[in-house]
Amino acid sequence: MDRVKKLEILLEFGKKIQAERNIEKLIKLLTEEATELLEAERATVFVLDKEKKKLWSLVGLGLDKQKIEIPMNEGIAGYVATTGESLNVPNAYKDERFNKEIDKKTGFRTKTILAVPIRNLKGEIMGVFQVLNKKDTTFNEEDEEILNMLASQAGVAIENSKLYSQLKEAFSSFIESLAQALDARDHITSGHTLRVANLSMLIGKKLGLNEEEIEILHHAAWLHDIGKIGIKDSVLAKPGKLTEEEFNHIKTHTILTKQILDKIKFYGKMKDIPLIASSHHERYDGRGYNLGLKGTEIPLLSRIISVSDVFDALTSKRHYRDPMPILQVLEIIEDGKGKNFDPKIVEIFFTLSLFEILNVIKLGRKKLKLTPEEENLLKSINLKTFFSFLKKKQNTPYGTKKPY
Amino acid sequence: MDRVKKLEILLEFGKKIQAERNIEKLIKLLTEEATELLEAERATVFVLDKEKKKLWSLVGLGLDKQKIEIPMNEGIAGYVATTGESLNVPNAYKDERFNKEIDKKTGFRTKTILAVPIRNLKGEIMGVFQVLNKKDTTFNEEDEEILNMLASQAGVAIENSKLYSQLKEAFSSFIESLAQALDARDHITSGHTLRVANLSMLIGKKLGLNEEEIEILHHAAWLHDIGKIGIKDSVLAKPGKLTEEEFNHIKTHTILTKQILDKIKFYGKMKDIPLIASSHHERYDGRGYNLGLKGTEIPLLSRIISVSDVFDALTSKRHYRDPMPILQVLEIIEDGKGKNFDPKIVEIFFTLSLFEILNVIKLGRKKLKLTPEEENLLKSINLKTFFSFLKKKQNTPYGTKKPY
Repeated sequence: MDRVKKLEILLEFGKKIQAERNIEKLIKLLTEEATELLEAERATVFVLDKEKKKLWSLVGLGLDKQKIEIPMNEGIAGYVATTGESLNVPNAYKDERFNKEIDKKTGFRTKTILAVPIRNLKGEIMGVFQVLNKKDTTFNEEDEEILNMLASQAGVAIENSKLYSQLKEAFSSFIESLAQALDARDHITSGHTLRVANLSMLIGKKLGLNEEEIEILHHAAWLHDIGKIGIKDSVLAKPGKLTEEEFNHIKTHTILTKQILDKIKFYGKMKDIPLIASSHHERYDGRGYNLGLKGTEIPLLSRIISVSDVFDALTSKRHYRDPMPILQVLEIIEDGKGKNFDPKIVEIFFTLSLFEILNVIKLGRKKLKLTPEEENLLKSINLKTFFSFLKKKQNTPYGTKKPY
Repeated sequence: MDRVKKLEILLEFGKKIQAERNIEKLIKLLTEEATELLEAERATVFVLDKEKKKLWSLVGLGLDKQKIEIPMNEGIAGYVATTGESLNVPNAYKDERFNKEIDKKTGFRTKTILAVPIRNLKGEIMGVFQVLNKKDTTFNEEDEEILNMLASQAGVAIENSKLYSQLKEAFSSFIESLAQALDARDHITSGHTLRVANLSMLIGKKLGLNEEEIEILHHAAWLHDIGKIGIKDSVLAKPGKLTEEEFNHIKTHTILTKQILDKIKFYGKMKDIPLIASSHHERYDGRGYNLGLKGTEIPLLSRIISVSDVFDALTSKRHYRDPMPILQVLEIIEDGKGKNFDPKIVEIFFTLSLFEILNVIKLGRKKLKLTPEEENLLKSINLKTFFSFLKKKQNTPYGTKKPY
C-alpha cells in the first residue's frame, strides 16, 4: 500500500472513530483498523484507568470479547504506559517484560509485538495501542509511524468518549440521587423510585427496546414522582387514609412532574421525557389522570412505568395498610389487563422470573441471601407459572381461600 | 504543496478539531485551516440550526467576530445547505444567488466562492463550508476535494460539540429547574436560589475566575440549598420565629446537601461541588456550621456563595420580618468582613454597580422598568459609593438616624 493510500484511509477512518462515543465500539473499530492497516494478526487497545492504576481492554475474537484488566506497570503494555516509550519486540517470549497470562486466557500465541502509547492532544497518556504478529515478518519503522498516527487519533477519540460518558453518568446519578432524596422524605416510600426504575428496565429490555429507548425509560422512571417535591409533608406522610381533598392534592404531583421537567432543555428523543414521566397514572381504558389518555395515546414507556409503579406500591407497606400478599398483587395486575394496564406489558411482566422480581422487591431493603441452588430454582420459574401455582394452591383444601 | 503534505496536514489538523468542544473556537480553527490550505482570503463555516431554519456563523477578522444569521435557503450558503450541492462561483457579484448584505456588513469584497455542504457520518447536512477569493486565481477541482475533506471532518466535530453542549445544557437546566421547584415549596423563598446563583456569578466574574471555575460556581450555587428537600414543611414555611430545635433542624440542610451531592458521579474539578455547595454557612472566623472551617479552609467558591446567600436573605421578605432596608443590609455585609465573610469577597461585592445589584434583587420578581438614562446612571454608581452616600445622608439633619 503506498503512502497516499494509507493517509487517505487514516483520514477517512478518523471521522468514523471520532463519531463513535461508545468506548467498547470504539476499541473494536480501532483494533479492526490497525489489524488491517498493519497486516497484523491481532490488535489490542488498552485504556488507562488512572484512578485504579489499571489498563483495561477487550480481548478475544469476534463478539465474545472478554474484558481484561492488568496493573498499569505490568507486561509490555504496562511498560509503554509507564515510560511513554514505543516498543518493537521481535520475539515476545524472549522478552522478560512480556506477560504470558493473557495468551493463556485467550489461547492466542503472541510472536511479535509493536506497542505505542496513546496520548491526548495535551500529551497525557490515555492508553496503549499494540499490534501482534505481523504476517510472515516483523514490524518495521513505517509500521511504527502508522501505528503512532492511529494512536494519536485514538487518544482524542478515547478522551471524547470518556468525557461524554462521564457527563452522562453525572447526569444519571444526579437524577437518581435527587429521586432517592425525595423518596426519603417519607420513610415508608424510601426506595420506591429505585425499584420502579429497575422493574421498568427489566420490562423494557424484555420488550426489546433499543439502547436509546432504554436510556429514556431510565430517566423517565427515575423522574416519574419528581413532582412530589411540591406535595405537602402532612399529606405525603399522613398516617392513615387520605381524605378526598388530600387525594386530589396528591394527584397534582403528575402535573408538577410535567412542569418541572418541561423546564429542562432536553434534546433529541429525550424531549419526550416530561410527557412520559408524567403519564404514569394514565389508564389504558382512559380513566386515569391527568389527561385521560387512552390505549396507545399513552406513551409506551409510561405504560411500562405504570405497571412497575403499581407493583411496587402494592408490595410495599403504606401508612394505611401492610404490604399485600404477592398472590393478591399478581391478581390485581392480571385483572388490570386492558383496564389499568396495556395487556402486552402485563404479559411481558409475567415472563419475569421469580429471581428477577425478588431482586426488585428487595432493592433498598434487607439483602437477599440465596444459595446457588435456590438462585437457579428462582431463575427457572417465571411469574406466570408461579401465579398459576399460587392460584391452584389457593383452591386446594390446603389453600387459604374461603369456600363459596 | 504536494498531496502527501496536504494529507498529513489534514490528518494532524483533524485531531485538533476533534478535541475542540467549544463551537465558536471550533469554527475559528476550521476557518483558519481552510484559509491556509486553500490559499484563500477568507473562509466561513455556517452551522445549520434546523429548528430555527437558519444558518449562523461568526464573520469578520480577528477577535471581534460578529455572529450572523441567515435564512437556511438564502444566498450561496443557503443554496448549498438546501440542495446539498457544491458550488464553485468564479464571480460572486454576477451570481444572482449571492447575498451582498454580508459584504456590506463586514466591509469585505467577495470575488470568488467555493462552497460545499458539511455533513455528519450519517450524511445529514450540518452546515456549509465556504472559502472566498483564492489568491490571484479561481478555485479548482483539487481545492474542492480538499475542502470536502475538511468539511467532512468538520461535520463530525460540529456534531460532537453540539451533542456535548446539549448534554451540558440539559444538566444545567435540570439543576436549575429542581432548585426552583424546591424554592417554590415556600412562596416566601421562591426565586432565592436563582438570585444567589446570579449574584455569585457576578462576584465570580469580577474575581476573574476562569471558565471551568465559573461553571463549578454555577452548579454549586444552584445546588447550595438542595438539602432543604429533607426539611419539614412545618419548619421551612413556619409563619413566625423558629424555636431553637426548629433552627437546629434547618441547620441540617447543609449536611443533607452534602449527602445528596456525594452520590453524584462528578468528575474532574466538579468533584469539589458537594463540599463547595454545602459550605455556604461556614464563617470566615470559623464560627459557622457544619464543620467550623475557617478562612481559606473554606473553599473560595463557598465564600462567594456565602455573601450572595446572606445578601438575598436580608433583602427578601421572611415569615418573621419584612425585607431589610438596603442600608442596613450593606452595613451587615460590611460589618461581616473577616467575621462572617472573606474580606476580599466583600470588597469585590462592593464594586458591583447599582444596576447589577438591582437586576439581581428584581430576579424572579416584578420586572424593573428603566429609561436608558436611568440605566446609565445606575451603571455608573457602584455599591461602595452608594453605601457611603447612604451613610452620610443618614447622619445629616435629613437622615432618619436617631440622635445619640
